[in-house]
Amino acid sequence: MNLALLFDDDFIAEDRARLTGRRLAHLRSVLKAGTGDQVPVGRVNGRMGMGEVLRLSDTEAELRVQLTQLPPPALPLTLVLAMPRPKMFRRVLQTCASLGVKDLWLIHSYKVEKSFWQTPWLSEPHLRENLTLGLEQARDTVMPRVQVRQRFKPFVEDELPGLLAGRQGWVAHPGTATPCPVHVNAPALLCIGPEGGFTPYEVGKLEEAGCQGVHLGPRILRVETAVPVLVSRLFDACR
Amino acid sequence: MNLALLFDDDFIAEDRARLTGRRLAHLRSVLKAGTGDQVPVGRVNGRMGMGEVLRLSDTEAELRVQLTQLPPPALPLTLVLAMPRPKMFRRVLQTCASLGVKDLWLIHSYKVEKSFWQTPWLSEPHLRENLTLGLEQARDTVMPRVQVRQRFKPFVEDELPGLLAGRQGWVAHPGTATPCPVHVNAPALLCIGPEGGFTPYEVGKLEEAGCQGVHLGPRILRVETAVPVLVSRLFDACR
Repeated sequence: MNLALLFDDDFIAEDRARLTGRRLAHLRSVLKAGTGDQVPVGRVNGRMGMGEVLRLSDTEAELRVQLTQLPPPALPLTLVLAMPRPKMFRRVLQTCASLGVKDLWLIHSYKVEKSFWQTPWLSEPHLRENLTLGLEQARDTVMPRVQVRQRFKPFVEDELPGLLAGRQGWVAHPGTATPCPVHVNAPALLCIGPEGGFTPYEVGKLEEAGCQGVHLGPRILRVETAVPVLVSRLFDACR
Repeated sequence: MNLALLFDDDFIAEDRARLTGRRLAHLRSVLKAGTGDQVPVGRVNGRMGMGEVLRLSDTEAELRVQLTQLPPPALPLTLVLAMPRPKMFRRVLQTCASLGVKDLWLIHSYKVEKSFWQTPWLSEPHLRENLTLGLEQARDTVMPRVQVRQRFKPFVEDELPGLLAGRQGWVAHPGTATPCPVHVNAPALLCIGPEGGFTPYEVGKLEEAGCQGVHLGPRILRVETAVPVLVSRLFDACR
């Protein structure tokens, strides 16, 4: 946690916020902050800055916050992921949030097991918790939007063409002839398949909707490794 | 597992190998392979190809293997990592192996807790197991070499200058002025610090040895995300 993310409920006045729970524990045990210390904070979907510890108890900390700094730029990316295995899902959420992905679609695919959709990590509070961890890691405040589509065909036929308006689209697919482009730095949409990949039928449907098949070389990467590799190729992350 | 990695002990003849344990379980329960089926295999530090299942029992599978294909090219990278937290360490090993890192140095740093060095995952069999998982994910056969250096100063003063002979070196350090270069595609050495980063003293010592400080933009990434981002910037992974 390189920044404590503050939500509207945490504010007791314009420049006063209370920290509890995980963020309080971090303040006490990792940062070892005491009264008078300054710690990095940010307001969800707002600015970042510092918070001065005014009071500190076992149950809460009160901070005087000054928020003047803009969060880092968002990636102009719509990321469409086949729903990952629950074991990987939390990490994928955190990774996406830390990289600056703001528009994430979780879709069904033939090789997504039905049980993946039952995971409690898809509930709103758990999504928010894991996205928050990613934002706090990266020092960002802008909460990504997550959309869930449990039917492949209606998504690809009815929604995907609209999402592709004004942006280039790609589907990462090992074995295609075209390598993934570099330094696009423009609005883009990227589809990443499940373990085992999209089926040929699915790749065909994604291509019909306007996505170009691209590969990442001979290595097959896990989704949590493929996402940073692809994002880093498409966008100059060092702005 | 996109390839079963075979070790010398697995071979019972030039073209015959026996699978047991984890790889057998994968063959049976994920690939659902039966007698006569072909499965992708590779020989450690050798070629890749296919194995035909000749016999299959509860305890072992016998394969006739034909190994004709070269593994994907290695990254010309020496990666120097501050020893990660045990919780992350296995994943970092797997990620490095899957990306094609072949020369990995784990070093001490001020913010590496002493307890990190006690992890059982540093034992030779566990290192090999996790590197194998990364190779099998990526379809590679060449086992990375891992070196452990529990003292920062002797490593940086006595060994690092030699490692930098004939290659450029960088230390990833948030807040420096120079962004990490792209498309280097030449022998390189990259140092990545612990959670919380290298100390200014340590960055100074690494710079003295010949590493240039570079940053990755305003976001602070976990080591398992920073590694693919940096590797993807430095090397065109799509060859």
